[in-house]
Amino acid sequence: MPQKPKILATQVVASSELFCIETVDLRFSNGEERRFERLAGGYNGAVLVVPLLNDDTVLLIKEYCVGMEDYEYYLPKGKVDAGEAMLAAANRELKEEVGYGARQLHELVAISQAPAYMRHRTHLVIARDLYEEKLQGDEPEPLEVLPLPLAELENWVMNGKITEARSIAALYLTRAWLDKQR
Amino acid sequence: MPQKPKILATQVVASSELFCIETVDLRFSNGEERRFERLAGGYNGAVLVVPLLNDDTVLLIKEYCVGMEDYEYYLPKGKVDAGEAMLAAANRELKEEVGYGARQLHELVAISQAPAYMRHRTHLVIARDLYEEKLQGDEPEPLEVLPLPLAELENWVMNGKITEARSIAALYLTRAWLDKQR
Repeated sequence: MPQKPKILATQVVASSELFCIETVDLRFSNGEERRFERLAGGYNGAVLVVPLLNDDTVLLIKEYCVGMEDYEYYLPKGKVDAGEAMLAAANRELKEEVGYGARQLHELVAISQAPAYMRHRTHLVIARDLYEEKLQGDEPEPLEVLPLPLAELENWVMNGKITEARSIAALYLTRAWLDKQR
Repeated sequence: MPQKPKILATQVVASSELFCIETVDLRFSNGEERRFERLAGGYNGAVLVVPLLNDDTVLLIKEYCVGMEDYEYYLPKGKVDAGEAMLAAANRELKEEVGYGARQLHELVAISQAPAYMRHRTHLVIARDLYEEKLQGDEPEPLEVLPLPLAELENWVMNGKITEARSIAALYLTRAWLDKQR
């Protein structure tokens, strides 16, 4: 394991309501110096919830994604609010986006996305023993909720029906976790 | 499927050397209007390469990620250059980051990351029949290359050794694809 590069300086170079971009000047252990850019913020982390209707079926939501300019199917997710417990955030997002709460919440593992550009960590949370409860979120239109039979996971991904990387990772990990429970 | 929202306006509100942030004003089919922000660019797409040393072993790289301020293990990847064929980009990244070329390249599927915030599509490419060839990349220090036995995938993810969402998704999809070939 090489020694970590030394951070010589960081500087905010651009920002908007949602994003903050900073430069980071690094000196690597071999003496090389480089300037990188990254997105600051997101340090409270995020949750991605796997709502198990039963041991063979997961609930997905369908939401309009302005990045892709299309509707996408994925798992409910959101940021952990300041001061909010991580599992509480998972249950809140589940109630807001899917219309269920969970009596059992289990953190599987935390994963990263674009680790070269963000500090963002996403906690994958399995939600079981569901009950109906709807909380009002800030969605501009109602989200469609769709059951995915876990046996169909490969097909849905290979056919392009599910594309989002964190959801795909979470669904495979959930399947492996369930296999171990049986 | 609801009708897609109408894009009323887009405007660049901040930019740096690497990032460009734009606002998008949307009117949803129910009449709700909202302003969102997204990262513009990345429209050529990216490649994420799964280098198979053999049918049981994948090669990972270890690289310093300034977002996480730590070294991370993941699959070789990079942007497709303007005018470059997607599979050629995959082979170039493989040569630059791992020191191998591949005689067989197969696109598995394309996935998204943060589809609400980026248009970014990542083509997952399985690379087989490898041969040694090193191309000079722009890395500040040599990358460590590490073989991952595919049978160990779950353990490495659950122990936090592999965290990057796209790599986890690609490795599970590769394992499923290999199972089908057998």
